[in-house]
Amino acid sequence: MSHKTFNIKSPEKEIVAHLVEKIDNLTKPKGSLGRLEELAIQIGSIQQTLTPTLTHPFHIVFGGDHGITAEGVSYSPAEVTPQMVFNFVEGGAGINFLARQHHIEMKIVDSGINYDFNGLEQLIDMKVRKGTRNYLHEAAVTREEFDLCIERGAQVVKDCHEAGCNIISFGEMGIGNTSSSSMWMTCFTQIPLDLCVGAGSGFDSEGVKRKYSILKQALENYKGDGSVIDILSYFGGYEMLMAVGGMLQAAELNMVILIDGFIMTNCILAASRLYPEVLEYAIYGHQGDEAGHKLVLDYLEAKPLLNFGLRLGEGTGAVCAYPLVDSAVRMINEMSTFKKASVTKYF
Amino acid sequence: MSHKTFNIKSPEKEIVAHLVEKIDNLTKPKGSLGRLEELAIQIGSIQQTLTPTLTHPFHIVFGGDHGITAEGVSYSPAEVTPQMVFNFVEGGAGINFLARQHHIEMKIVDSGINYDFNGLEQLIDMKVRKGTRNYLHEAAVTREEFDLCIERGAQVVKDCHEAGCNIISFGEMGIGNTSSSSMWMTCFTQIPLDLCVGAGSGFDSEGVKRKYSILKQALENYKGDGSVIDILSYFGGYEMLMAVGGMLQAAELNMVILIDGFIMTNCILAASRLYPEVLEYAIYGHQGDEAGHKLVLDYLEAKPLLNFGLRLGEGTGAVCAYPLVDSAVRMINEMSTFKKASVTKYF
Repeated sequence: MSHKTFNIKSPEKEIVAHLVEKIDNLTKPKGSLGRLEELAIQIGSIQQTLTPTLTHPFHIVFGGDHGITAEGVSYSPAEVTPQMVFNFVEGGAGINFLARQHHIEMKIVDSGINYDFNGLEQLIDMKVRKGTRNYLHEAAVTREEFDLCIERGAQVVKDCHEAGCNIISFGEMGIGNTSSSSMWMTCFTQIPLDLCVGAGSGFDSEGVKRKYSILKQALENYKGDGSVIDILSYFGGYEMLMAVGGMLQAAELNMVILIDGFIMTNCILAASRLYPEVLEYAIYGHQGDEAGHKLVLDYLEAKPLLNFGLRLGEGTGAVCAYPLVDSAVRMINEMSTFKKASVTKYF
Repeated sequence: MSHKTFNIKSPEKEIVAHLVEKIDNLTKPKGSLGRLEELAIQIGSIQQTLTPTLTHPFHIVFGGDHGITAEGVSYSPAEVTPQMVFNFVEGGAGINFLARQHHIEMKIVDSGINYDFNGLEQLIDMKVRKGTRNYLHEAAVTREEFDLCIERGAQVVKDCHEAGCNIISFGEMGIGNTSSSSMWMTCFTQIPLDLCVGAGSGFDSEGVKRKYSILKQALENYKGDGSVIDILSYFGGYEMLMAVGGMLQAAELNMVILIDGFIMTNCILAASRLYPEVLEYAIYGHQGDEAGHKLVLDYLEAKPLLNFGLRLGEGTGAVCAYPLVDSAVRMINEMSTFKKASVTKYF
């Protein structure tokens, strides 16, 4: 088997007690900075330091089309995928203003969009194919394409790391990819499919019912071997598999991974089926309204930072939460100690 | 009656439909930026513009001591109030790193701290008295002091506004002020006192019980006329009343008011008993763990942006949430429209 492997370790736990001690000596009642303290401990553990930093953050948007959209599983037409890529490149999309606000460098990757961009500048061409196959009838992604996606996703992250990045987030643009996410979710969590399927970009309840009935049929038609890689390939999207590869590479490089909404949460779930330790590098930005998102977060015992009703994708839920992660790092580095500030400790 | 009055109006509602129309034409599924869209509509309404901005944000920390601490209602000793003021001025407290992170200018106000700062630079001296009286036995604040607090709090905000500020947040430092907040809360909401009393900076359940029994006695001892100003004065703190005055002044000047945790939520509740329209200018940064905070937020039908387990005070819950408010404003100004970006509208 030639596929890429990763060397992902759990962060050493010895440092946790030292991080807690440092935080407990900052001028505040014990535990009174709540989630910021938890984040500081996690990031300090990942970086194995009492003075963690966030350097050169990147946000990667992977774009891909999905053969299953031929069945009408999405409210939005597939033509929106390439249209939005142009919008990303122009800087006019939701993810753009958030990345600008937080000084996060963006990369837009064509993982497999059904459109000829003809060498569009600012778009990284990693196109595997012009959209996946329709998994109502066949595997969406071949085994060779799967390997390619993991490798290419990993390569993007490696490049960021070499540029000095130690925190990275991922987003997606791919009409139809909530469907793929629901399929992965039901297969990996055993949560019934109907609880994993939601409105996507705008279905009403009738639309969700139609989407569910198509996905149910696709699940019944699936005759694969049930292995992780088979499930990932059969129902996967190119952009989602590149995100999986990117997450695994980020964990191998001890980078903090900031997770977006429903789709990226299912990508980290998928990644964890290959390498469970990847979860220790993940911070969850946002819990969206998409049916199933809360369920998969609960399954992962993940506590998202925000609950803002975002359902745009692109990574907006991750990038919107970035300053909160930054706050945690600033806390542990910048706050004074009781001793230094001459504040009575039993505050 | 000579006390200061404010001219606070509800923002005109005509603009809301135009704000909604603008937001619905941005390149995203309708409603898919959730809370950011709600914030943009609120801020656009306050500023009566389709291109709202946030300019020169200020954060004001009012400090004051409380006579009731003589009864042991607080886990932390009262000496911590002035100690922390020195920490604020040195830049080592929790609120400092957050304000630096978000480029928010801070002002520290001595509203009534029981300490001689001897003209400490960077501390605005508005001291009314060295701590309030003990409301177990008498009114904490006189009617003259009440007027002074409202005027001085308003003056601080006026100064910020003149410096170009259109969004402001408030925090406090005052050992004992969760007790005053609980008293205001029970009086104004009729929620039973035991549900309004919590751990403050660190009481265990026995400590909370002792605190409750003292506050219950104080409530029984109260023989005032039950008017808003009488309740505010009797149980109030100087720092809290200055925050009330500041909030009212901010609303009069059409400024966005970013509300912190339990204490500041009770200050906006108090302010709304004087001028109900003030609530339309408020954005709630954080729901803390202090017992009663969720109840008073629910009472105000307020939806806090964060739920981060913060219980530090100082305004950390407001300032930590600032970038989320900033995101909302950037969204409405920076995102492209369907037409401009040539994206199919039914996305």
